[in-house]
Amino acid sequence: MWKTGVIKPKDSSKAKIFPATGDIKTSGFLGNRIKTNRKKSIPSLYNLFLKYGEIDNFRIVAGEKKGKIVRRLATDSNLYKWMEAVSYDINNQMDKENEKLLDSLISLIGKAQEASGYINTFYTKYKKERFKNLINSHELYCGGHLIQAAIAYHRATGKDNLLKIAVKWADYICKRFGKGKVEENDGHPEVEMSLVELYRETGKERYLELANYFMSLPYKHLGNYSFLKFPQVLGHAVRMMYLCAGATDYYIETGDERYYKKLLSLWQDTAEKKIYITGGIGSRYCGEAIGLSYELPNLRAYAESCANIAFMMWAYRMFLAEGSPDFMDVFETILYNGFLSGISLNGETYFYVNPLASKGEHKRVAWYDCCCCPPNIQRMLASLPSYFYGLTREGIWINLYGASDSRIKLLSGNQVKIIQQTEYPFEGRITIDITPEKKEKFALFLRIPEWVNSYSVKVNGKPMPCKSRGHIKIQSIWEAVKTRIELEFEVRPALYIPHPEIESTKNCIAIKRGPLVYCLEGIDNPGINLFNCILVEDTLIEKKEGNLLGGVYTISGEVLTSDQKLPLYEQKSRYPEIKYRKRRFKAIPYYAWANRGNKGMTVYLRYGRGLDKDL
Amino acid sequence: MWKTGVIKPKDSSKAKIFPATGDIKTSGFLGNRIKTNRKKSIPSLYNLFLKYGEIDNFRIVAGEKKGKIVRRLATDSNLYKWMEAVSYDINNQMDKENEKLLDSLISLIGKAQEASGYINTFYTKYKKERFKNLINSHELYCGGHLIQAAIAYHRATGKDNLLKIAVKWADYICKRFGKGKVEENDGHPEVEMSLVELYRETGKERYLELANYFMSLPYKHLGNYSFLKFPQVLGHAVRMMYLCAGATDYYIETGDERYYKKLLSLWQDTAEKKIYITGGIGSRYCGEAIGLSYELPNLRAYAESCANIAFMMWAYRMFLAEGSPDFMDVFETILYNGFLSGISLNGETYFYVNPLASKGEHKRVAWYDCCCCPPNIQRMLASLPSYFYGLTREGIWINLYGASDSRIKLLSGNQVKIIQQTEYPFEGRITIDITPEKKEKFALFLRIPEWVNSYSVKVNGKPMPCKSRGHIKIQSIWEAVKTRIELEFEVRPALYIPHPEIESTKNCIAIKRGPLVYCLEGIDNPGINLFNCILVEDTLIEKKEGNLLGGVYTISGEVLTSDQKLPLYEQKSRYPEIKYRKRRFKAIPYYAWANRGNKGMTVYLRYGRGLDKDL
Repeated sequence: MWKTGVIKPKDSSKAKIFPATGDIKTSGFLGNRIKTNRKKSIPSLYNLFLKYGEIDNFRIVAGEKKGKIVRRLATDSNLYKWMEAVSYDINNQMDKENEKLLDSLISLIGKAQEASGYINTFYTKYKKERFKNLINSHELYCGGHLIQAAIAYHRATGKDNLLKIAVKWADYICKRFGKGKVEENDGHPEVEMSLVELYRETGKERYLELANYFMSLPYKHLGNYSFLKFPQVLGHAVRMMYLCAGATDYYIETGDERYYKKLLSLWQDTAEKKIYITGGIGSRYCGEAIGLSYELPNLRAYAESCANIAFMMWAYRMFLAEGSPDFMDVFETILYNGFLSGISLNGETYFYVNPLASKGEHKRVAWYDCCCCPPNIQRMLASLPSYFYGLTREGIWINLYGASDSRIKLLSGNQVKIIQQTEYPFEGRITIDITPEKKEKFALFLRIPEWVNSYSVKVNGKPMPCKSRGHIKIQSIWEAVKTRIELEFEVRPALYIPHPEIESTKNCIAIKRGPLVYCLEGIDNPGINLFNCILVEDTLIEKKEGNLLGGVYTISGEVLTSDQKLPLYEQKSRYPEIKYRKRRFKAIPYYAWANRGNKGMTVYLRYGRGLDKDL
Repeated sequence: MWKTGVIKPKDSSKAKIFPATGDIKTSGFLGNRIKTNRKKSIPSLYNLFLKYGEIDNFRIVAGEKKGKIVRRLATDSNLYKWMEAVSYDINNQMDKENEKLLDSLISLIGKAQEASGYINTFYTKYKKERFKNLINSHELYCGGHLIQAAIAYHRATGKDNLLKIAVKWADYICKRFGKGKVEENDGHPEVEMSLVELYRETGKERYLELANYFMSLPYKHLGNYSFLKFPQVLGHAVRMMYLCAGATDYYIETGDERYYKKLLSLWQDTAEKKIYITGGIGSRYCGEAIGLSYELPNLRAYAESCANIAFMMWAYRMFLAEGSPDFMDVFETILYNGFLSGISLNGETYFYVNPLASKGEHKRVAWYDCCCCPPNIQRMLASLPSYFYGLTREGIWINLYGASDSRIKLLSGNQVKIIQQTEYPFEGRITIDITPEKKEKFALFLRIPEWVNSYSVKVNGKPMPCKSRGHIKIQSIWEAVKTRIELEFEVRPALYIPHPEIESTKNCIAIKRGPLVYCLEGIDNPGINLFNCILVEDTLIEKKEGNLLGGVYTISGEVLTSDQKLPLYEQKSRYPEIKYRKRRFKAIPYYAWANRGNKGMTVYLRYGRGLDKDL
């Protein structure tokens, strides 16, 4: 039962759309991933926390155990993020076992907190000077994750045990930071977003003000710009995206136009020049950074899982602020591609980076020494149901499609049952049954994804007029009986052309089907050189393969391929004739790659014989 | 007067070719660069050393000055490399002023050396524990550069003042390192090469043995492999290349077949998969590292000047070991492209990285905080004359072409005057006048560069038969009068196709003319979108522009170009029609780029309309 969404804009806020709440039960494709998260990912990561000392850190500081703190970068935040994941999952399916576990962890965390409110296992244990190395210490970053976990647990259960700890911490930093006090922000933004949410949760304006104060200071890892001075998105991708998410929250609550303008221009820069086709963001290993415009290498893509998640958070907040489907389109692109690629189908191994090509060097693992991504993936997965529906005075917005059974409360208090039956994202047919408890006039807004070229909508069997994209609005006086909406998007393999200024994909093409980006894996394509093969046009065939990778549609087609040994550089006039052979390839959804080992992968194929035509 | 070459293989060594010595005076293209090096680069860098405390470090340790050591990475080595450059330049043109300056610096260095032989300004001043942090301390690396400078100065002047310091240091490390003593090598290879050379210079086998000992230990910054275990070239490019150069020296002196086999396989890996068309090596900013096979981005190319120089050193040593022109071809490719691009035409600013495309973010500067490249460029420039000629029992090998006036001593002691008149690398006509002091039968070997498709040779006006490439041998009983050899390579713009597995250049093409790679700069090409333009075939025209960039041949041609705003990704069926306009572009030699500011640059152009044909 989602009593509130993951975020909860105030009624007085500038949000154009509010997260709808209620009982949202997913099944189908996303529901299965959420279930695997609950059954496999969450418990296995907890065991790894036990194994690698992340819980012991708190026990040691709480005086329950002797030993040394295991310090990895921002260690405490991993547990907080995991607790946030568990809290969200409580909304999906009440699980008393996890609640008990969380309560005992919260009690432990409470003991590890200093009387002042300060909390950080490493700094407390070793009595290090506080807030003296904010550029790298992650003290506020960890605190931000504590706040988010506390709010999530409070909203899910009504219990304020963790919230009290978080508020004590937040009040402490309110006292310590500000003009004439510590005049610096954290090298890793994150606390900004959490402070705005804490303001939403408690009504205390000091948290909102502190968020603003932090954003008014230069971010040293992000080109030394304060938020309103950023000329473009740049630097460490996770940091930049968390900051943008926090700034959007701040705008939503304050209506500060300067923030709004800056956010729109940063979004444009991101969306038009710096995203992978998978929705991934961050193209550099060096500094885990966003690159220049159109700098989007495939083999050396970084596209860190955490950055992609932070980007989803930003996109969703922009959607709430703006109401435009563009933002949910981006959210969906990340979700089904660059986000889901970060976790294996069995829910037990992860990718930190999400490349668009691999020669076999990328391996999924259960644990990273800097274990930020796994619990981040878990909290996003567990929270997905809360992203499904939006609410305005006009009615209900369907943001995400997926088999699900929900009870959403309108602003009038009237409860509406919404059942989605669909094989989305594999199929475009979505049957939506709407049943209000009481008869009421309201609108239903259906998002038409940007990839859709053709679709139809019927209401109780009667066709509706369709415009090409955006949101379709179905205004009606809904009777207190089931109304069936049949939405059908044409789903077929489509070739996507990347911008010609992207150095790594000149004259290359990617295949998508619906919201899913496809890729070729070596295991499915023996005899094909993934890195030198050319797509033959008009040869694509799709096939449902229920037993492959948890059930997918594959796409096959023809490529010309060659393993011929070729010179590194050679004059055109002396170039050897390349003998290509024709082979049938098989492509799978990108999110499912590297679940059968890794014998190479590519998203892009050469397209058009290009050069070779002229040889 | 080059009494010995930059390196001096022993007579008993496995070298197939020996560096020829004598009076080698260059003029023309390379001669001018060497002169600028002498007149501008060397003095201006010395002044910067004074300004930034690099000389003061020695004064402080010598007790001549009070203050703190300015520590940058491997600081001492910068001065040593500069002294090596000055020493080489003494061979080119005796300059007593510089010799006096060097002698005073040597006296200072002598005072900074500890009684034990240990020398390192930072470690001595702060009494740090020695050889405890070899992975990062650069202690042996700096020592290696000291040895090289000392040998260069000794060979140039016959003075042993610096050599004594270097020998004392080398003897000290011989005592300190080895089984049962310090059992570790330097994280940054370099000392290996210098130890083999010191063995050559002094005849003391302990230096050769120590080089071998170091190479038998794992290199922690290079995948933890000892030399004979390397599966491929990998890791930090400068380190890998210096190590390969040192290993080649070791092979030349010992004939150790295991080294030989490993060197050939590493060379093959490098030459076939990991070099830029400019000869640059090292594709990653992260770790300044060599990438995977075919990982060669343009905008984010690293191709550090030091790496390119180290690669030249390795290539030359391989040439001496093998005698094959392939190695000198690579040397020449680096020389005229990825090496010369590292220094401005006025000799006063430098590039640390040498990208193949730029959006304006790369700027030449006079000083880098880690100032390794500038003096490295200077020592390579000053030493170039010694690379011109090779010697065997059969006769003289012409390795490099360039206007020059030389006196080379045959093994018989007979002196041969060789005058090259040529506008090489811009023109392919080379007139070589050979005049031995005494009549003697010997051969002249002319290298036919790999880029040559067609050429002619005449001896005293009489045509010689020409094979396609490699070395052409002119065996003769040369009278003690001038014999004129007229060599003519056909030089015209040629299109070069990169390997199709290189992600960053799919369906792209580069333009070369002779050994020179060309590029388009924004300043010459207003109205052309360098990053989205398509070469129109058969439109290339060359033009001599004597007043441009010190005198160059430019190449112009037609491109289709578009500034149209295009989506980052779009379905082929919805893709907007791209309206191209035809424009004439002008390309300049790559080495001369960024000498008029930087408004963007690209080496590669799209070739064939590729995708657009099918839109």
